[in-house]
Amino acid sequence: MSVKIYLRVHFYDTDTMGIVHHSNYIRWFETGRVEYLRNIGIELNEMLADKITFPIVEIRAKYFEPAKFDDELEIEIIALSLTKVMMDFKYKIRRKGEEKVLASGYSRNVFVSMETGKIVRLPEKYFLKLQDAMNEEMQE
Amino acid sequence: MSVKIYLRVHFYDTDTMGIVHHSNYIRWFETGRVEYLRNIGIELNEMLADKITFPIVEIRAKYFEPAKFDDELEIEIIALSLTKVMMDFKYKIRRKGEEKVLASGYSRNVFVSMETGKIVRLPEKYFLKLQDAMNEEMQE
Amino acid sequence: MSVKIYLRVHFYDTDTMGIVHHSNYIRWFETGRVEYLRNIGIELNEMLADKITFPIVEIRAKYFEPAKFDDELEIEIIALSLTKVMMDFKYKIRRKGEEKVLASGYSRNVFVSMETGKIVRLPEKYFLKLQDAMNEEMQE
Amino acid sequence: MSVKIYLRVHFYDTDTMGIVHHSNYIRWFETGRVEYLRNIGIELNEMLADKITFPIVEIRAKYFEPAKFDDELEIEIIALSLTKVMMDFKYKIRRKGEEKVLASGYSRNVFVSMETGKIVRLPEKYFLKLQDAMNEEMQE
Repeated sequence: MSVKIYLRVHFYDTDTMGIVHHSNYIRWFETGRVEYLRNIGIELNEMLADKITFPIVEIRAKYFEPAKFDDELEIEIIALSLTKVMMDFKYKIRRKGEEKVLASGYSRNVFVSMETGKIVRLPEKYFLKLQDAMNEEMQE
Repeated sequence: MSVKIYLRVHFYDTDTMGIVHHSNYIRWFETGRVEYLRNIGIELNEMLADKITFPIVEIRAKYFEPAKFDDELEIEIIALSLTKVMMDFKYKIRRKGEEKVLASGYSRNVFVSMETGKIVRLPEKYFLKLQDAMNEEMQE
Repeated sequence: MSVKIYLRVHFYDTDTMGIVHHSNYIRWFETGRVEYLRNIGIELNEMLADKITFPIVEIRAKYFEPAKFDDELEIEIIALSLTKVMMDFKYKIRRKGEEKVLASGYSRNVFVSMETGKIVRLPEKYFLKLQDAMNEEMQE
Repeated sequence: MSVKIYLRVHFYDTDTMGIVHHSNYIRWFETGRVEYLRNIGIELNEMLADKITFPIVEIRAKYFEPAKFDDELEIEIIALSLTKVMMDFKYKIRRKGEEKVLASGYSRNVFVSMETGKIVRLPEKYFLKLQDAMNEEMQE
């Protein structure tokens, strides 16, 4: 199960080389991840209200061709592993309607208790949704 | 009493026009404000620990000449009014060692209780420091 | 003639106070401005290809109530003055479907020749579109 | 040969979890990279003037412990490989004066001609400096 979101490159996303600054793809991965989770019924604000944070512990990105101001982009988000303690996603960014991948990436989030600052196992209400999504991914 | 800080324009601060994106000067005003306050003995982390936030309620900036990647800049921070409930600052940004002002600005912060979400009067330990700084400004 | 765009607050737009960092509204004004111009037939990439840049020379913003992560926002963009040499816009930001204004703002862009670095009068193909939009604003 | 730079976490670097947003470490890697290059006599503005850009083609980062607002950080930059066509660096971020690594990372830049958009071999004036730096790294 992959989720796709669409966005336009903002002027403020670009740099003096006339291309999108590479750090912004990392931010778009996040935007995609939030929508993937919303899609399977998980709202991160609810998780924060439950005193659970979800820091990133690893990021990787490869950049094949630069995006530029005003490009319409598609961010594809694919779950690799969704467990009680972490979420692994990969990402592909293309210009809308094109096959060619401009950038790809990977991220890992862990779940951390706001109270202890330590890794925490997700309550069932969240975990069951992640499990269902992961099962769906597997069957594809 | 004005405080000056120095910074170099980062590559990620620039945009496709080859100049600093205008939103970044607003961020540098903040960097300067934090140092001004540290200079007079106020640490914002202590204020946050005391459940006081300090949101911006007004910002103004004029841009006379663009800064570019790798420029060394001087941010001058001048207090206009520092009271129990708010802080008004103005800012001047120049290239280091030059007279010409590249950008100028103004900001107002208010103090808000994290618990009530409402404007709060600062405890004396903070306010006395602001008052001293303001008195010093007046005498100049 | 006002134009409205909609966006969701990203996680990366927020700060340690749990609210949107004030500099990001300035960026959203830009996002709105780009869409306003596209709406009246002006593509900024075409302007850049014509060696015309459009730096901001003035920004103002007032913040009445904070937006937070995941809020759905409406950015309303209203042209105040669109001439051969500059564009003045104002902005209102609300939560989608609400009356209350969270933040308002103002911006002025000028047009600058990439070759001379000086203010330039817009070619007619752009100016006529701005003029039409301005006339429409006047009649409302 | 490693180069170290020092910076303080800005308020605008943080997010709603009260920690530095992970995308900002990627930006700090860049700040460090620019200083490493300046240290060995390479100014990126000169390279841009010579119509050479230096886009990032790969980024990796691991996050072990979060940095927070106002932390004083040390960014250590180590060259892994510096050739005519690319630069590989790794990074370690610590709190100033502490041993513990908060985040580590890796980046690869390639050199691209502004005119052709293709990978280009660096002119000798740049390459010799990279080679000297690399030789020095090797001897350590």
